[in-house]
Amino acid sequence: MNYRIVGKTLGIILIIEALLMIPSFLISIYYNQVDKYPFLFCILLTGAVGFIMYKIKADKKAIKIKEGLAIASFGWIVLSIFGALPFVLSDSIPSYVDALFETISGFTTTGATLVNNVEAMPKGILFWRSFTHWIGGMGILVFTVAFLPVVGGFQMFKAESPGPTADRFVPRIKDTAKILYITYITMTLVQIGLLVLGGMSLFESAAHTFGTVGTGGLSTRNASIGAYNSIYIHMVIGIFMTLSGINFSLYYALFKRRWRDVIKDQELILYLGIILASTILIALNLKANLYENFGLALKDAFFQVSSIITTTGYATTDFDLWPAFSKAVLFLLMFVGGCAGSTAGGIKTIRILVLLKLIKREVQKIFHPRAIIPIRVGGEKVVSNETITGITSFFALYFFIFIVSTVLVSLEGIDFESSITSVAATLGNIGPGFGFIGPTRTFSGFSAWSKILFSILMLLGRLELFTMIALFVPKSWRNEI
Amino acid sequence: MNYRIVGKTLGIILIIEALLMIPSFLISIYYNQVDKYPFLFCILLTGAVGFIMYKIKADKKAIKIKEGLAIASFGWIVLSIFGALPFVLSDSIPSYVDALFETISGFTTTGATLVNNVEAMPKGILFWRSFTHWIGGMGILVFTVAFLPVVGGFQMFKAESPGPTADRFVPRIKDTAKILYITYITMTLVQIGLLVLGGMSLFESAAHTFGTVGTGGLSTRNASIGAYNSIYIHMVIGIFMTLSGINFSLYYALFKRRWRDVIKDQELILYLGIILASTILIALNLKANLYENFGLALKDAFFQVSSIITTTGYATTDFDLWPAFSKAVLFLLMFVGGCAGSTAGGIKTIRILVLLKLIKREVQKIFHPRAIIPIRVGGEKVVSNETITGITSFFALYFFIFIVSTVLVSLEGIDFESSITSVAATLGNIGPGFGFIGPTRTFSGFSAWSKILFSILMLLGRLELFTMIALFVPKSWRNEI
Repeated sequence: MNYRIVGKTLGIILIIEALLMIPSFLISIYYNQVDKYPFLFCILLTGAVGFIMYKIKADKKAIKIKEGLAIASFGWIVLSIFGALPFVLSDSIPSYVDALFETISGFTTTGATLVNNVEAMPKGILFWRSFTHWIGGMGILVFTVAFLPVVGGFQMFKAESPGPTADRFVPRIKDTAKILYITYITMTLVQIGLLVLGGMSLFESAAHTFGTVGTGGLSTRNASIGAYNSIYIHMVIGIFMTLSGINFSLYYALFKRRWRDVIKDQELILYLGIILASTILIALNLKANLYENFGLALKDAFFQVSSIITTTGYATTDFDLWPAFSKAVLFLLMFVGGCAGSTAGGIKTIRILVLLKLIKREVQKIFHPRAIIPIRVGGEKVVSNETITGITSFFALYFFIFIVSTVLVSLEGIDFESSITSVAATLGNIGPGFGFIGPTRTFSGFSAWSKILFSILMLLGRLELFTMIALFVPKSWRNEI
Repeated sequence: MNYRIVGKTLGIILIIEALLMIPSFLISIYYNQVDKYPFLFCILLTGAVGFIMYKIKADKKAIKIKEGLAIASFGWIVLSIFGALPFVLSDSIPSYVDALFETISGFTTTGATLVNNVEAMPKGILFWRSFTHWIGGMGILVFTVAFLPVVGGFQMFKAESPGPTADRFVPRIKDTAKILYITYITMTLVQIGLLVLGGMSLFESAAHTFGTVGTGGLSTRNASIGAYNSIYIHMVIGIFMTLSGINFSLYYALFKRRWRDVIKDQELILYLGIILASTILIALNLKANLYENFGLALKDAFFQVSSIITTTGYATTDFDLWPAFSKAVLFLLMFVGGCAGSTAGGIKTIRILVLLKLIKREVQKIFHPRAIIPIRVGGEKVVSNETITGITSFFALYFFIFIVSTVLVSLEGIDFESSITSVAATLGNIGPGFGFIGPTRTFSGFSAWSKILFSILMLLGRLELFTMIALFVPKSWRNEI
């Protein structure tokens, strides 16, 4: 491990973070609130630490696989360590462990919160809290890759970019990053515009847009999106959540008028199919048990399906009170996640697709024991055996971590539904779950130990498990690898 | 598909079933109870139908893969269809759907029950109910293979024998079957003897032994094993459950004094390790929250761990009242299951072992992207890629069925914990779960639709998913395969 280059790169990340805190600082000045000095202090401190680390003498070419992994994993941790300071210093979240949880929840675009009364927080803090989603959504490291050749190396991009299909993008890192952030910024601006048109204030439009396009889910309102009694706003956010869960390279393909690439994308078809089917099933169940009006049932069903499958976590209503069947469908969606190459977390639709194809192949093999049946995704492309083992191992590890964590959380003595969905909601970067952590409640009732566990799960989920775990394999610290 | 040979073989299975009903008939005569005429009628009917089917003219050599699969799957179904009749005709379980559920639960060694007051049932019926476990435990088809060369073919044995390691056994089907049933009968006789020594009546000793060595779990008492206030009895059953979850070929190895094969068996080590660790964790948790005496906590913890991991389902106490952590550990064990080649159901320890090794390899691959790292189980044996995909696909399909079924069961409107554990308990062939189907309760509260779903899940679990699903792939009915 070349510690120097890792430290130097983390320094750059901190300098960027200090710059990214400036908008929040300006907002706190504009509203003249208590959080302006804390932000000023944090910007100077973060910038200074970053600058000192940046001054480390290191060889740019020293970044190999393990340095890339270290930067990707420690990048998020370092970002969160400094990003948590404004919460503590402004007394918005006095406990540092709590502030760290909230910040990790922001950067990993989870959207789980410990704050019981969000509306009492100062504006700068509220903006920062939502802005962490926006930063995290795209992965600050993609920006780092794009702007700073010092970090370089395709390995890191591969470790960072969500999903197993980095190869779908154009090969040159810089160009890829450019396309991604242009798409991202365009989506952001369009959504802010649409929300402002719907009567939401510019501040809240921006905050909720950050939470939408980053598939985060933190809101500036206690009742989340339910605070806005407007079908238009619910639909705008609902649709933009779905859009944010789609592979961003498909927008590039659309832009280049490569329609066939979009229409024939099997992951997209499965993703939209799951959304459509789940929405109809839940809407019917809601109409039968809870709603008078089928249209409203359909609207809330779509919003919630879109929110959970994209791992955003916004709510227009307390879905914890929905009938068991609707909740079970939502629970199922917690394990799907958005498309690869989107800002969504979770297992990802492409992995579900490959698994379904594997199951199908296994059934075929019973009858043709000696046949070699390749797995294809999207027409001709054959998925290599290596990718398949990667996906199945991911799946195995995901459930392994899921089950062990559920056992650990159960030490809190809360009910089964709450333990199990709290782990699903953090590991899958979703945010709220059922019961104890339902959409009208927060994670504040947990002990510090569980909050630390959840923080780790959020990071694990965001880094797609293996990236982070590999770091803690002792061998990776030795030089021979 | 050669329907003739399938029909003929199913006829043989029915004749055997008629013979296997005779002990229950004799018991009902001995106790002079209402169920003697129903048994007489069922024996004659089952035997007659079996005889007619046996008379179908068919070529013994016509059994190929798909015929083997059909016999394996339909064998269980036909057995259950006729095995349910005594319950209905004796008016013990008046509804045929209910009786079918109870019988499938018996033959698949699940041990889920619909009967709220077991102790009111006539003796012959009680004996038959437990005896179905004993028949199912070893797999009546292994007997069929051994006794009747007409069924022949290694394919069927492979489809039937629990677990992926049929090749561990001696190659000749007949010899294998002999070894298996000698082991099975010896264990049965030893356990009956030990229970009788502990003061249990011969009748109840036999019934509970059938439920133990078959890893079934149906009891003749409403309070299950908790009805016996004897640490000795709890320990005998607890230990024999653990013994029944071990690969039977290891007993043969012991008998042949091949100690090394036993000591170096990685699956056995993992299996016993999980039992030991879970027992200690639960005992500590019980001592901290519920028990005065650590020894008693240890005893009940061991019994319940042994019962759940082997998918038996007996209980000495209402573990649904245990603290959340203990329940979470038990929930985790529901997804482990016993060793391959035992009578236990579930995912099986060997699959968990291979999955853990796959995860480990994936982490190693991050650092050595081009390395080819073989997966080994038990010293030198390299697990083929085909077996690995088989195992991962099994795992994927298991969770797929698990999640979809949970969604379907949630239509009952029961709580989350009950929906999820009812599916885990039937698909894993365990029996009781938590909440609505806790150890002091039964499946009687579910609608007929859910009972049918659970019946299918029990069959799917017992036949290791693919065997049965393959049958319902339309192509398999066509002759070209």
